Amino acid sequence: MADPQLIALDWGSTRLRAFLLGAGGEVLLSRQSDAGASTLSGTEAFEQALATLVGDWRTAQPALPLLACGMVGSQHGWREAPYVACPADATELAARAPQVHERLYIIPGLVDDIATPDVMRGEETQIFGALALHPELAGDACLVLPGTHSKWARVAAGRVTGFATHMTGELFALLRQHSVLARLMPADGSSPASPEAFVQGVDAAREDGGLAHQLFAVRTLGLFKQLAPEQLPDYLSGLLIGHEIAGELKRAPQRLALVGDPALCARYAQALARFGQPAPLLLDNTAPAGLWRLAQTMKLI
Amino acid sequence: MADPQLIALDWGSTRLRAFLLGAGGEVLLSRQSDAGASTLSGTEAFEQALATLVGDWRTAQPALPLLACGMVGSQHGWREAPYVACPADATELAARAPQVHERLYIIPGLVDDIATPDVMRGEETQIFGALALHPELAGDACLVLPGTHSKWARVAAGRVTGFATHMTGELFALLRQHSVLARLMPADGSSPASPEAFVQGVDAAREDGGLAHQLFAVRTLGLFKQLAPEQLPDYLSGLLIGHEIAGELKRAPQRLALVGDPALCARYAQALARFGQPAPLLLDNTAPAGLWRLAQTMKLI
Repeated sequence: MADPQLIALDWGSTRLRAFLLGAGGEVLLSRQSDAGASTLSGTEAFEQALATLVGDWRTAQPALPLLACGMVGSQHGWREAPYVACPADATELAARAPQVHERLYIIPGLVDDIATPDVMRGEETQIFGALALHPELAGDACLVLPGTHSKWARVAAGRVTGFATHMTGELFALLRQHSVLARLMPADGSSPASPEAFVQGVDAAREDGGLAHQLFAVRTLGLFKQLAPEQLPDYLSGLLIGHEIAGELKRAPQRLALVGDPALCARYAQALARFGQPAPLLLDNTAPAGLWRLAQTMKLI
Repeated sequence: MADPQLIALDWGSTRLRAFLLGAGGEVLLSRQSDAGASTLSGTEAFEQALATLVGDWRTAQPALPLLACGMVGSQHGWREAPYVACPADATELAARAPQVHERLYIIPGLVDDIATPDVMRGEETQIFGALALHPELAGDACLVLPGTHSKWARVAAGRVTGFATHMTGELFALLRQHSVLARLMPADGSSPASPEAFVQGVDAAREDGGLAHQLFAVRTLGLFKQLAPEQLPDYLSGLLIGHEIAGELKRAPQRLALVGDPALCARYAQALARFGQPAPLLLDNTAPAGLWRLAQTMKLI
């Protein structure tokens, strides 16, 4: 294999993703495992999880540096990397990355503590990856990273100036699995997507009727057969994503970019269109690019 | 015992509450059991649950009429009592109460289907009980019935003209038990109340930052030790109740009355005061008064 330069680790709560990066930052190889940070406890467990996944890469090239981001740097991770306060750029993050051992560093998360504190771990790296791939975003943009805890991060002059988390994905999972709404829906994963119901949910959110009120409509639309059982999950998804977008669009409009899982980003793009927003830039996994960019800043490569 | 006139049954999803009412509608005796409608299936199961709880009352006075409200009248209850559309008054509800057997009737629920449908079963009876006890509310008021699914019902000229459900109590339970927020909180029921944290949550909701966003602050306020673990449930409660109130107060202001569990109503009253609202009328369980009023309308007594 040609010239590996860095082992990049996107080490979240539930997954460990490893990328072997080449001289241009390109992904030569990638692997993943279930050894998320929340499943591990103690230095040895983290060492072992890393050895299991990429021990052969390290044996083949013992001098390769490793750079990690995500919950591996939390209080309960391998080594705590204290949050860096916004506004922050890649240089500040890189300067505050603790060294775990001779060749391994962990990128710290960000805290926005202007008012009520908000935090991210891992997304900051995806953001700097997105800015590395699309420098035109670095001037003034809002990067949206949908997920269990969606992040809306404002970027200006190459720095993350602030951000807000929305528990949209977690609320969806809770309501889909445990609430009174779940009883009217087919078992999880068994229903085909209903784009119409998704749009209907987004449009309901645009009317801004109060989330806890509008959620109850998922039940009544099912009870009165205005939506079929298999449409209800998508209506719920549209309602939740719509409320997230409605809340964020109250700020001054900015150029938007969506970063993350393509299917989920496509949903957000569809919902944004219902709000009359121009089509956002869509970016897939930018964690390897972010780790590459930060490793350059740290002169690890 | 002096002169019983009616067996009033408040038969919800999880509880069956029975009241033996005297000649003035006063409660002579009351009992309850876990034989909620959601735990029973088939006519015999309902018959049996009723016999177990109040069989002796019926044996002593076989001619006593019985009137029930709540989920006992749902699709999956003893006998379906189809929803009556708003606006509706006590006479309309009484006229549409199906007869289950010679002496037993079930009060139907209400549907507000002007826009997205909304439904209630049981609360309509509490509302007409409140209006019977406080006729001054019947002209123009909003009755708030806090709970798992809180109801805000608008009343004018003796009719319920419309209402909205908020899944506030259910969201609290889901987030308290199953979410990432729960991990920072003490086990359920083990923490003393924190009125300060409750008010802080209400005040956060008044800023209207988007519910799914503000929920994440429950986590970060705990992470950064701005609130103690035992304060987080009350902050969460204040946030959810505050959002419910903020959404409803966007309508034209009306005279408010709180109906239901005194401890929960006291929380709502405290939150309403933070919104600058005058002290609402507080009413405890009004289901017996409502069933008495409807039984009079039906000439059962």
